[in-house]
Amino acid sequence: MTYCVGIEVNEGLVFAADTRTSASFDDVRVYRKMHVFEWPGDRVFVIMSAGNLATTQLTISRLQRDADDPDATRSLRTFSHLYEVAEYVGDTLVASQVKMKDEAQQSGVNVQSTLILGGQIAGERPGLYMVYPLGNCIATSPETPYLQIGESKYGKPILDRIIRPETSLEDAARCALVSLDSTIRSNLSVGMPVDMALLRSGDLKISQKMRLEADTPLYAEIHDTWSRKLEAAVHSLPRFPWEPPQEREDVPGPLPAMPPRRIPSRQDPGDAQGQQQ
Amino acid sequence: MTYCVGIEVNEGLVFAADTRTSASFDDVRVYRKMHVFEWPGDRVFVIMSAGNLATTQLTISRLQRDADDPDATRSLRTFSHLYEVAEYVGDTLVASQVKMKDEAQQSGVNVQSTLILGGQIAGERPGLYMVYPLGNCIATSPETPYLQIGESKYGKPILDRIIRPETSLEDAARCALVSLDSTIRSNLSVGMPVDMALLRSGDLKISQKMRLEADTPLYAEIHDTWSRKLEAAVHSLPRFPWEPPQEREDVPGPLPAMPPRRIPSRQDPGDAQGQQQ
Repeated sequence: MTYCVGIEVNEGLVFAADTRTSASFDDVRVYRKMHVFEWPGDRVFVIMSAGNLATTQLTISRLQRDADDPDATRSLRTFSHLYEVAEYVGDTLVASQVKMKDEAQQSGVNVQSTLILGGQIAGERPGLYMVYPLGNCIATSPETPYLQIGESKYGKPILDRIIRPETSLEDAARCALVSLDSTIRSNLSVGMPVDMALLRSGDLKISQKMRLEADTPLYAEIHDTWSRKLEAAVHSLPRFPWEPPQEREDVPGPLPAMPPRRIPSRQDPGDAQGQQQ
Repeated sequence: MTYCVGIEVNEGLVFAADTRTSASFDDVRVYRKMHVFEWPGDRVFVIMSAGNLATTQLTISRLQRDADDPDATRSLRTFSHLYEVAEYVGDTLVASQVKMKDEAQQSGVNVQSTLILGGQIAGERPGLYMVYPLGNCIATSPETPYLQIGESKYGKPILDRIIRPETSLEDAARCALVSLDSTIRSNLSVGMPVDMALLRSGDLKISQKMRLEADTPLYAEIHDTWSRKLEAAVHSLPRFPWEPPQEREDVPGPLPAMPPRRIPSRQDPGDAQGQQQ
């Protein structure tokens, strides 16, 4: 499995991807799922992939071959609009699947892949597309400013609650890391390390790029402190009618890791031999 | 679809369930999925259900019939241990599915249901079980203090991060409501109103019970403010190396709904005719 998320905000694009591939529980490997194609000052693209690894690698190789060929009529370098690039990447994906399909005929292997393509061409705003296995694609919109591929459910609520076009690029990146961390925690088939790239509108190159391991200080701190921050947030939600009013509200400093019990727990009346012992 | 969550903390049990049933997109109804069986001072049980509605209703009706029969040898009133109740509820569930299966043979309808059973019998600690369609069941543990049925993925990360045995009953209830709200927001097949019940250890009756509509003030406030609290939490996560240090940390009062941009957004160099317009 896989989890990749692309976010488009006014300031630019954020890409984040895990690196775990698995053919089965005992065949787990690390592969980069984030691929960068960069011609600084002219154009920059990031492609993330979920699905069949062989299909993805063939697609990326073909895109690279075309880009390296000065005589190619269609390549990442030849188009002047991002939607044309998305169409071309979709065509390349379909062609790669067709080749795989011929070779893997009757084997029952799913050779499909799904891609997220984002980037910017000089003269245009940045853009973000999901390229489906059929080769067609959809873009983000102000109401839906992010796209996910792979195991998307665990990491979706945080994106739904936070990401808007006005969100800063760095807050969007922090949100993407929380989204990844939640998914990695809940699903064994999504794993560290995490690749992240930021593309600030107008830079026309990758503005920031990093690989985060579990012990990278930034990631470790997010992983370690997010639960505590959530706990403080839950604790600060409205009281129930039967509860005493909250003693401490909006006080300076972090809330304690474990909020004090406001209602003393009652003792069990009976023995300690119940089935929960 | 459905989403129900049961939580066991040291102080007691929390139950929360949505009420939407759907046979298809255009056959959506409201049904109670939380059923209470209460003999105050002696025993109290809560059963929540996901899956085939007819199977669930038959199971609940049979449990009620047995409980109302003073001569019944096996009923919710006859056992002295909760795990025996779980076994009996499992048997009743399997019998209900068998009857349905005979009637719905060859129709392709899935007649299975999955239940969450929680409660307390005098002399025991409260307990919480998931009853599978096969009739077997699993209990919570200190490391896994909650159980979910139905559309569980969207609402799982918040539970994983927050719920521990030491969490207060009310914080667990607030967490359950956030978990429900996240799921309702992300999945059309899970819908309002929400039923919630709290069972404080030793009360031997339902301590608190409520139905929350979308405009119930408590729920509406959680729904409205949770995104803002999350946003403040994301914003307070560690800075990236290239960011200036955070100007305002742990200041009193709520953070603004939209944190100020710390890095001015760059203007697009080119025209405004890109495909993102």
